[in-house]
Amino acid sequence: MIQIIPIKVSGDVRPPDELDSIVLKAVKQNHQEIRDGDILVIAQKVVSKAEGRTVSLANVKPSKDAVRMAKEHGKDPRVMELILKESAQILRAQNGIIVSETKHGFVCANAGVDQSNIQGDAAVLLPADPDRSASQLRDAIKKKAGREAAIIITDTFGRPFRNGQTNMAIGVAGINPIRSYIGSRDMYGRKLRVTEIAVADEMASAAELAMGKADGVPVAIVRGYKFEKAAKSSTKPLIRPKERDLFR
Amino acid sequence: MIQIIPIKVSGDVRPPDELDSIVLKAVKQNHQEIRDGDILVIAQKVVSKAEGRTVSLANVKPSKDAVRMAKEHGKDPRVMELILKESAQILRAQNGIIVSETKHGFVCANAGVDQSNIQGDAAVLLPADPDRSASQLRDAIKKKAGREAAIIITDTFGRPFRNGQTNMAIGVAGINPIRSYIGSRDMYGRKLRVTEIAVADEMASAAELAMGKADGVPVAIVRGYKFEKAAKSSTKPLIRPKERDLFR
Repeated sequence: MIQIIPIKVSGDVRPPDELDSIVLKAVKQNHQEIRDGDILVIAQKVVSKAEGRTVSLANVKPSKDAVRMAKEHGKDPRVMELILKESAQILRAQNGIIVSETKHGFVCANAGVDQSNIQGDAAVLLPADPDRSASQLRDAIKKKAGREAAIIITDTFGRPFRNGQTNMAIGVAGINPIRSYIGSRDMYGRKLRVTEIAVADEMASAAELAMGKADGVPVAIVRGYKFEKAAKSSTKPLIRPKERDLFR
Repeated sequence: MIQIIPIKVSGDVRPPDELDSIVLKAVKQNHQEIRDGDILVIAQKVVSKAEGRTVSLANVKPSKDAVRMAKEHGKDPRVMELILKESAQILRAQNGIIVSETKHGFVCANAGVDQSNIQGDAAVLLPADPDRSASQLRDAIKKKAGREAAIIITDTFGRPFRNGQTNMAIGVAGINPIRSYIGSRDMYGRKLRVTEIAVADEMASAAELAMGKADGVPVAIVRGYKFEKAAKSSTKPLIRPKERDLFR
């Protein structure tokens, strides 16, 4: 059996709050503990806030391009400026929706720039290197709590073809984000059609069910899932190279 | 806390096995029970097999188009024929990968036609009407076990931009597959960026973690998730109309 345990975080997060302290304190306050083999799933917003990735819009000077696109798509020019800065490439800009590839390689709306659940006239950017954020948190938990946990940092993305958003992994540590069945055979000896499962994305989605959006639950523990451990892990294997994508 | 309980199904499934009997028997054999408010997640393969959606390839006569496309994409012409028959529209056909819109409106590889985990020279098609399959199962569980459960039928789909497949909902009963935050506000009174979460897809993904691909676990119970009940439910809200899709 797999368990998904919600961890409420009380109060606002801002530097110099350290992510590891926030998480460990919250786990304790929720009368839970981290165990070896747990997967700790953390919403991007908390990570970004702790890392100071909050930008006061008063300090953003929009470029000409940003002003033009903002007008065209009904956005704040300063937010548009941040979206352009965070993007490696704009893929679609239509009906007020901007879909871009972020500098990390993720394809999502507004390059992950977000104004919800944040105080004042500001926006939050995705962590600069979510894999590194995950790795540092993993190391700190090992050091401070003596536990071997995997980490998944998630954000909520839309997707083609289907309505509604789902949570996906944008940073991982200690876990292979893909479970491979390549070469495996089914119970009749036939090669499996399904060869690779994005288990980190599935865990991100599972954790979202326990998190919700407005309840102050940005962390969940996934317990009881036997994952493939990886000393060096990254979300890179989850990103399809653009030349191999049939829909770009 | 949310629990995901794997339900092993022993032996092969074939008509006249009834889906409800298979599921209820398996739950009992796994020393589990269905409770009011549970969500029963079931892999498409079992549903299709029970509904006789298995096609012996010896009985399939490929059309000229099927023969041509099969040659071009390294597929069995008879399987290609089934893919064409199950498709409303072929979206991409490249490097041996066929992505189509099924007659139900799902966008997936090979129109869901699958040869893994099936005996002999045969293929399994998606259920003709997965929402109906889910609804019938829900009614039968209510009648036979006296329990109010929601049903999600799932299949494993690839997706643009990201490697690895994840499970998605192709049939639902008793549950609103989308959780809407439209009009909701965050803790600072600002409108939420995220307005609609595809919770049925997230539950399908969560359940996949307990199912795996080769272990004979095609059913999982998701327990402890407070979902929005719906007397009349359908996967239609999960399907984005093509004219509103930026990547078609």
